Amino acid sequence: MSTAPQTRAATAARPLHPFDDALALEPAGEHRFLGRTTPEYWNMIGPFGGITAATLLQAALDHPQRLGDPVSLTVNFAGPIAEGPFEIEARPVRTNRSTQHWTLELRQGDAVATTATAMFAVRRETWACGEALMPEVPAAEALVAMNGFAPVRWLKSYDMRPVRGAKPTAEAGTEHPDSLTQFWLRDAPARTPDFAAVAAWADSFYPRIFLKRAGFVPAGTVSMTTYFHADAATLAALGDSHVLASAQAQVFRQGFFDQRAQLWSAGGELIASSHQIVYYKE
Amino acid sequence: MSTAPQTRAATAARPLHPFDDALALEPAGEHRFLGRTTPEYWNMIGPFGGITAATLLQAALDHPQRLGDPVSLTVNFAGPIAEGPFEIEARPVRTNRSTQHWTLELRQGDAVATTATAMFAVRRETWACGEALMPEVPAAEALVAMNGFAPVRWLKSYDMRPVRGAKPTAEAGTEHPDSLTQFWLRDAPARTPDFAAVAAWADSFYPRIFLKRAGFVPAGTVSMTTYFHADAATLAALGDSHVLASAQAQVFRQGFFDQRAQLWSAGGELIASSHQIVYYKE
Repeated sequence: MSTAPQTRAATAARPLHPFDDALALEPAGEHRFLGRTTPEYWNMIGPFGGITAATLLQAALDHPQRLGDPVSLTVNFAGPIAEGPFEIEARPVRTNRSTQHWTLELRQGDAVATTATAMFAVRRETWACGEALMPEVPAAEALVAMNGFAPVRWLKSYDMRPVRGAKPTAEAGTEHPDSLTQFWLRDAPARTPDFAAVAAWADSFYPRIFLKRAGFVPAGTVSMTTYFHADAATLAALGDSHVLASAQAQVFRQGFFDQRAQLWSAGGELIASSHQIVYYKE
Repeated sequence: MSTAPQTRAATAARPLHPFDDALALEPAGEHRFLGRTTPEYWNMIGPFGGITAATLLQAALDHPQRLGDPVSLTVNFAGPIAEGPFEIEARPVRTNRSTQHWTLELRQGDAVATTATAMFAVRRETWACGEALMPEVPAAEALVAMNGFAPVRWLKSYDMRPVRGAKPTAEAGTEHPDSLTQFWLRDAPARTPDFAAVAAWADSFYPRIFLKRAGFVPAGTVSMTTYFHADAATLAALGDSHVLASAQAQVFRQGFFDQRAQLWSAGGELIASSHQIVYYKE
């Protein structure tokens, strides 16, 4: 891709994966990076929120002062992002012995479109325990990938294999008893995941109110927080296997609902947990 | 209290509640406020994280450009806060028609101790649904407040009535089957809640690993996100009733565990949901 930084394009033995292309950032001075939207992750009227979250995280990952790996990421979708270039400021505001805190901002012109904070850490082996258990579902291989149920480009950049509630039901006006969605997920084309991929996956669910209310209403994520429970080696070991993605709301009230999401490896390890608060108009 | 701003002290018909005293901020120029730690919310080696979260939120609440009420708050505990004064920078980075995004920072001298982001909104009535259900537990009135189980001052600033797992069991070295804690909670002395009170309540749980591992290990919250599901009128209507506070971890791995928390009104309304990621050494 001609707009990708030369360093990446030159070292790639094959064409850049569209996800890596979307994440390509050019250093532009201290704590500053330049990027641009790409068609493969376009949503209705702006980029897929997950790609914005991933790109902000990538700025910290690319930063020469980076310490360790992502543990938490909060992204606030403050305003629209237009097609084209944007600037990211990624500032390591505090670096401790084994942890590092980031403040990030995505701007177009003078407007702040997205803000974020992230915490990175050097992780080490400790006593461990997976208290939450993976839902019992059919294996990804037993299921068929669905076609994107909505006319948005970014859905074609994912292989989603529905287990339950993976698309809104068609009976508009009826109320679904719950807002639980589960599907197996990987990038399309397949790509070995990294932290940025997980940051994007965490936003791969359509708004819970579409399922609950069995229809489309104006809705959009305003803030999303993801906790990374797997280290880089664990993610790399996933290869091209799918992860089980699960999401459910707890409450819809006064124009906002929440969403609790989990991403599980096929082996039953909780890779990431994520939460978001979503605006809706109904 | 002599260090409280005159404006607040002068208008109070009775002595300031210790929580209001802790939250008292003096305007100190554009987007800047001065505060200080207070003994009533002191933890082991710094202030209770909940009071820090509440104080950061209060800076945005006090800001002359504030629009609407808090919907989400993320607080990153980047470094220690020493006893004494601190400065908060509260910057409304983007104000839309009905939403507003904030970036916040708490500093002592040149060091950034805490960072935060918040989203405020003008909320309005919409279709609503409480999908998650409040756990069935005995009423607060049927239970006795516990004495603080640990020698930290801030616990005395809360009336906690244990339902389950409200203090770590004493059999060190055994492993508890789950990390679920539930207790009824209000401020002590009683205080009609507001958004700042809820922000503090969301951090009122001791580290889940104390329960899971039946003992104390070094642990501390590094990032916390709270979603406010109740508006100001709903909070005010709680008066001096207790809320049911519930918290559980999903996974403990490589030095970090998560915590999912809920705050319920006695009437069964989800007042707030909150999540945090916590460092531990084991």
